[in-house]
Amino acid sequence: MAKQVKKQKQELPVILVTNDDGISAPGIRALVEAARGLGKIVVVAPDKPQSGMGHAITIGQPLRLQKSTQFEGVEAYSCSGTPVDCVKLAVDKVLHRKPDVCISGVNHGANHSINVIYSGTMSAALEASIESIPSIGFSLLDFSIEADFSAAIKYARIIIEQVLKSRSLDKHLCLNVNIPAIPEKLIKGIRICRQAYAKYEEDFDERKDPHGKKYYWLTGEFVNFDKGKDTDVWALKNNYVSVVPVQFDLTHYQLKQQLETKWKF
Amino acid sequence: MAKQVKKQKQELPVILVTNDDGISAPGIRALVEAARGLGKIVVVAPDKPQSGMGHAITIGQPLRLQKSTQFEGVEAYSCSGTPVDCVKLAVDKVLHRKPDVCISGVNHGANHSINVIYSGTMSAALEASIESIPSIGFSLLDFSIEADFSAAIKYARIIIEQVLKSRSLDKHLCLNVNIPAIPEKLIKGIRICRQAYAKYEEDFDERKDPHGKKYYWLTGEFVNFDKGKDTDVWALKNNYVSVVPVQFDLTHYQLKQQLETKWKF
Repeated sequence: MAKQVKKQKQELPVILVTNDDGISAPGIRALVEAARGLGKIVVVAPDKPQSGMGHAITIGQPLRLQKSTQFEGVEAYSCSGTPVDCVKLAVDKVLHRKPDVCISGVNHGANHSINVIYSGTMSAALEASIESIPSIGFSLLDFSIEADFSAAIKYARIIIEQVLKSRSLDKHLCLNVNIPAIPEKLIKGIRICRQAYAKYEEDFDERKDPHGKKYYWLTGEFVNFDKGKDTDVWALKNNYVSVVPVQFDLTHYQLKQQLETKWKF
Repeated sequence: MAKQVKKQKQELPVILVTNDDGISAPGIRALVEAARGLGKIVVVAPDKPQSGMGHAITIGQPLRLQKSTQFEGVEAYSCSGTPVDCVKLAVDKVLHRKPDVCISGVNHGANHSINVIYSGTMSAALEASIESIPSIGFSLLDFSIEADFSAAIKYARIIIEQVLKSRSLDKHLCLNVNIPAIPEKLIKGIRICRQAYAKYEEDFDERKDPHGKKYYWLTGEFVNFDKGKDTDVWALKNNYVSVVPVQFDLTHYQLKQQLETKWKF
């Protein structure tokens, strides 16, 4: 028994990498670079962009896995499903065990505030957390395909190392990390934050197709309703990397207490 | 000003109805019946099944709206997008205002415990809550197309009336309501609960296509790890309708506090 424990300790941690922008996105290459040397890296990522897929899973059709040579010296697979599917399939059919940590991203674009709920990047991380796998989703506040990921790589590595050291803290640990799109030297550090109440004010763009029928493009303006200085939006605006610990228990405990007192059926 | 307030008070509440099983599912017909007479009902629901879509939104393509005559005497539209898209589009392009309440379902199948996070039904309700629209997602623990919705209709109506009366309680009020699949007379009542930690243990069904290539079907066994008697799973097993108040702030405040103390970057 003692021997077995010792053997496990000597083994490199297994690091599962996924994202929602798809396996060929520059962001996931950056994340693999950030994690190099910290453990045995295995990539299972969507074969196409899956932004805004939230916690979607594929029910009505089967999934495919395809070996990928995208990352030098790293075992990698593309998957026909959503980011959440990737995590499920990776654990059950690729790793045949839980990885020691799951990292998702680096997303091209912000996942602070309410974005956490629409984000495939964060849903993949949250799925790992449901499976008792500590996880981190990383996002850089730059949508560009040519975004500079150097600061993201630096801070991702620091945070992955911290999580690997802190695995006993909480088996459902899940972090939403956002990195401001500024030169690395201007970043002031890392702040633990809460999720800001900031959201999109929708304004669909109504158009007519060549046959005269209407269609609608989702657009919207991002509005921050939250004046707190402890939020992710505040931290990012003030040149910090924001770290929000997130959870999958959606129970609103405070409201639960109120309803128990006030509502009689 | 006083006159305007009075006029608003006399107006019927606007009730937005959506779901994730699609506009032609029996469950949404049941929900429209449950709400009849309680306000002006407007339906905007997906034009096809959208189960397991979670909080997905449609980014890469535009959306379509189509008038529907599915519900007698009720203004209704089918939408080409996800349940969350339906809510966004309904507010911006159909109602041109926030409805007084948004109801989603009745889902064919359970949305208790971790299902809340995969469920299109609940994501639609949560989206309304983000928009400061009180909302309720309803699910019946019966997948059958021929499910008996009579108990669901009865309890949905009771809870919709309660929410309409309680609109001042919390503008982000969002309830996850599950109804056991038993005859109405066996239901013991309604319980306010927390979300159980119960989830699926995945076991993908691996097959080979006619060309010898592997593919994978998502399957899994539902396991309840939560022994609490205050959970939705417990309530449903004990013949109660479960009501879990849910929230979109995913911050894990307890863990946040721990990280602030323990982590120094």
